Amino acid sequence: MPVVPPRINLVTLGVADVARATAFYQGLGWRLSPASVFGVVSFFDLDSCVLGLWSAAALASEARIGTPTGPGAVSLAINVGAAPDVDAAIDAAVAAGGSVLRPAGDALEFEGRSGYFADPDGHPWEVVHNPGFTLGTTGRVQLP
Amino acid sequence: MPVVPPRINLVTLGVADVARATAFYQGLGWRLSPASVFGVVSFFDLDSCVLGLWSAAALASEARIGTPTGPGAVSLAINVGAAPDVDAAIDAAVAAGGSVLRPAGDALEFEGRSGYFADPDGHPWEVVHNPGFTLGTTGRVQLP
Repeated sequence: MPVVPPRINLVTLGVADVARATAFYQGLGWRLSPASVFGVVSFFDLDSCVLGLWSAAALASEARIGTPTGPGAVSLAINVGAAPDVDAAIDAAVAAGGSVLRPAGDALEFEGRSGYFADPDGHPWEVVHNPGFTLGTTGRVQLP
Repeated sequence: MPVVPPRINLVTLGVADVARATAFYQGLGWRLSPASVFGVVSFFDLDSCVLGLWSAAALASEARIGTPTGPGAVSLAINVGAAPDVDAAIDAAVAAGGSVLRPAGDALEFEGRSGYFADPDGHPWEVVHNPGFTLGTTGRVQLP
């Protein structure tokens, strides 16, 4: 095992309002962990890894990140099993208070379907059906 | 299962130079997937999820992200089993060409040890030992 273990345990999104962001993800039907502290930090167990929501200002201060708020060149992807699932997921995200960044459509980089939505802080999420990426029984992408 | 499945399959970092960023992560001892295309896109199977490296400009164009390059309010965390592992991992990241954002030290938000390094594009990674978070045998954080 390398000294820097090859894993991502948490993805933490810096948000303007933890309660507002939490409500959005709960609105997607995601289960809030009791490890969360209301209005301060929220955790969602995503099976593969943990999604954390935390004050963008606090995160920037702790990590000494130069750009304290807003989305950067980072995308979180959710792979789904069929092309129509992309459209349904984008619609559900909008219904929960998200916004469309790129409508569901043909993927640009491969034969498949893809769309992007943003959460209330503008963090981009891709929903994608890529027939070339095998999805395991737990929903995990299995790379060669 | 919600229409938006609660999972993160890929975390994609937008980078200035895919080959340079790939060399950094390979320098950590991480295994490059043969699904990668040299200089275009790289994938690392992190067991829990997949880390992708892709042109920041291409990512911003595809996702229609307003801020095309650089790190945003996003942090990727690697939990380790013991406090000294934090220091060793930060040192190893620096040896591989990363930079220190926050030196290893007492965590601010809980009893534990934490430090942050940045990859060559400034994407922040936290290495953290949090005795309150159980690490499973596969290295996954297990939330209540």
